[in-house]
Amino acid sequence: MALINRLDARDAGFASALRNLLAFEAAQDESIDRAAADILHAVRTRGDDALLEYTRRFDRVQADSVAALEIPKDSWHAALASLPAGQRQALEAAAARVRAYHERQRGETWTYTEADGTVLGQKITPLDRVGLYVPGGKAAYPSSVLMNAIPAKVAGVPELIMVTPTPDGVRNPMVLAAAAIAGVDRAYAIGGAQAVGALAYGTEVIPQVDKVVGPGNAYVAAAKRRVYGTVGIDMIAGPSEILIICDGQTPADWIAMDLFSQAEHDELAQAILLCPDAAYLDQVAAAIERLLPTMPRADILRTSLANRGALIHVRDLEEACAIANDIAPEHLEISTADPEKWADRIRHAGAIFMGRYSSESLGDYCAGPNHVLPTSRTARFSSPLGVYDFQKRSSLIQVSREGAQTLGRIAAELAYGEGLQAHAGSAEYRLDPK
Amino acid sequence: MALINRLDARDAGFASALRNLLAFEAAQDESIDRAAADILHAVRTRGDDALLEYTRRFDRVQADSVAALEIPKDSWHAALASLPAGQRQALEAAAARVRAYHERQRGETWTYTEADGTVLGQKITPLDRVGLYVPGGKAAYPSSVLMNAIPAKVAGVPELIMVTPTPDGVRNPMVLAAAAIAGVDRAYAIGGAQAVGALAYGTEVIPQVDKVVGPGNAYVAAAKRRVYGTVGIDMIAGPSEILIICDGQTPADWIAMDLFSQAEHDELAQAILLCPDAAYLDQVAAAIERLLPTMPRADILRTSLANRGALIHVRDLEEACAIANDIAPEHLEISTADPEKWADRIRHAGAIFMGRYSSESLGDYCAGPNHVLPTSRTARFSSPLGVYDFQKRSSLIQVSREGAQTLGRIAAELAYGEGLQAHAGSAEYRLDPK
Repeated sequence: MALINRLDARDAGFASALRNLLAFEAAQDESIDRAAADILHAVRTRGDDALLEYTRRFDRVQADSVAALEIPKDSWHAALASLPAGQRQALEAAAARVRAYHERQRGETWTYTEADGTVLGQKITPLDRVGLYVPGGKAAYPSSVLMNAIPAKVAGVPELIMVTPTPDGVRNPMVLAAAAIAGVDRAYAIGGAQAVGALAYGTEVIPQVDKVVGPGNAYVAAAKRRVYGTVGIDMIAGPSEILIICDGQTPADWIAMDLFSQAEHDELAQAILLCPDAAYLDQVAAAIERLLPTMPRADILRTSLANRGALIHVRDLEEACAIANDIAPEHLEISTADPEKWADRIRHAGAIFMGRYSSESLGDYCAGPNHVLPTSRTARFSSPLGVYDFQKRSSLIQVSREGAQTLGRIAAELAYGEGLQAHAGSAEYRLDPK
Repeated sequence: MALINRLDARDAGFASALRNLLAFEAAQDESIDRAAADILHAVRTRGDDALLEYTRRFDRVQADSVAALEIPKDSWHAALASLPAGQRQALEAAAARVRAYHERQRGETWTYTEADGTVLGQKITPLDRVGLYVPGGKAAYPSSVLMNAIPAKVAGVPELIMVTPTPDGVRNPMVLAAAAIAGVDRAYAIGGAQAVGALAYGTEVIPQVDKVVGPGNAYVAAAKRRVYGTVGIDMIAGPSEILIICDGQTPADWIAMDLFSQAEHDELAQAILLCPDAAYLDQVAAAIERLLPTMPRADILRTSLANRGALIHVRDLEEACAIANDIAPEHLEISTADPEKWADRIRHAGAIFMGRYSSESLGDYCAGPNHVLPTSRTARFSSPLGVYDFQKRSSLIQVSREGAQTLGRIAAELAYGEGLQAHAGSAEYRLDPK
């Protein structure tokens, strides 16, 4: 049996076969949602006591107070100092590049003055306080700490509070080192829905934040969904995806490994290649057969590629771009000559990797742009995590006396039309007496 | 009994009294949510048939096909032509000002090239297709059509589809006129959760959109909440709010009417005044007593001011700004001398109206900035509706061969640290052979 699905865009059943391959229903488990709701309620009403109880129960960590669960800042710096030099330098180099890119995203306040002296504008302010969730255990990625924390600090968020579960008290030194590099302000060894609740509502020790960001398991996702509105949240991410458009001239092993680099995340990850050259697709299939057994995560790769992966034969690169716009992938590699030409036709993708040297993994770690990207076709209407997620806008309206004469007449006319007499009255009071 | 609550920031119980006044729990009615879910399911599975059934049942409109529910464009232009000249000119003037302001919000694609030839950037694209919900009946506001549609068209959205219920077949000419002015592309006489479902999933006649915006009743809000993720949504707005900071030098009648202009929206609307001058608060209270009986919406005003309104005596304007930042109001009027000075201290507000001539109603209709603003303290983390809500970003990453040597080593180091060998392999393939 082939390790990966093969499709042809010329086939009659292609559209529905592609739809089936892409189909992913975020399983909203009712029992998980119920459990998260109960935990949130307990933290909201009983604060620190509830937080300590859940931390004892789920993480097997005993503490007399939530204050004792704070991970002191000097221990982060100790963790950073203890890393092998190569790892430390790589983290610092990645952080510097991510910071440089994100600084270009910072919004600035603007105003303009009209002829009659009326001033209009848009004021930009950072959020006061942000909570950053970092998963514990195997999915504790220091690169995620950088990608979530750096945009918040570039935005000017004065207080960034990290929470991360430490099952059995085990703390991840690379995560703490990344927190030190990224400029996190405080860290607590708490996790799960209870940590989300503490950040969203505040407890005696944990201050209420304005937004909660960062990935987590199903309980964390359910809790984030429920606290949305009380605080902001980033997004509820679906499985990770890569779509590669290739002209058949990139070494087949490179493309096979790029597909693996997405598929190795988990069994639901999706890796798809579009190419107009059938012989090249055979080469990539052969590379997959040859390379897969050498990979430490071969089991995950097998499941992911068999269930959700595909090599798709397309008529030409035009058609590949049309399919890419329909899929609106999280990651899109355009591994072709003239990648700019094809990138110009892409309307929907979280990140576009152009040219044969731009492997997705470079973007995951250190190219500069964020690796938190819209999944499951949401790139049709949403954006990578960025500085703009940690700033917000306030409209500025300073109407001159002269301006109030013009605007007041327009506003009153429309207000009467809508039956809102106080709106009209408020505008008319500002009219000069005749 | 006084028509409006009086509080003093010096009182011991002030903080909790203010908290109680602000408290608003968006009543998530389970039966409404259940009904919305059933309607969405029916539209998703049975498409146009379900849409026609619900439109017959809820709006008492008979139609043989959904195509027959399209409101033809020439009827919008007829509606515009039939308006009294003053109303038409006011709508057109408001639209021109709203357009001019929003044009300054348009994001632009940017890139930069590093020394080794690597290009990084951010590409901006509009959404392909947006659905605009416009309520029927009394809450059908042409100004809302302008405020929702114009930013989408300024963003470059090629297809903007308006839906609006027409109970008993009655179409609102001001709404249709506003659609003509704002550049809406198509309109259908459908509403409720069924219209949201049609836009989110698509039917035979109604095409699937990428985002649904616009206000609606509780069923519409519940449906929007449920389709979020399949499509984008704008926000679920709470009751409207105004907070006024006044130094006691603005005519008391003006401020009373500004409070009314918020309170007249509905019984849950909130209008609060902060002032360091107790005698001035008495004057405003007297103005309220005198003016209220003259207002057509006096009953709504009475309920809203008694339950949710307040005149608050503060120590000074510094304290007023601190309270404003805590409340994070939707609308903030700074009706003082030197309004810039105090505006500089405001971190959280949807829109800031500066100076005695800047009544909120001017912003509601025609100053230029959007009147769709974050409510219920969400200005701590969110922004007015804007062009940015109809554009999204894609990261651009074009790594040069030379760049891949530097970036590949960093990425591989971090990927090994995270146990992701395919990520490392993918980066290492791009390293030149030694």
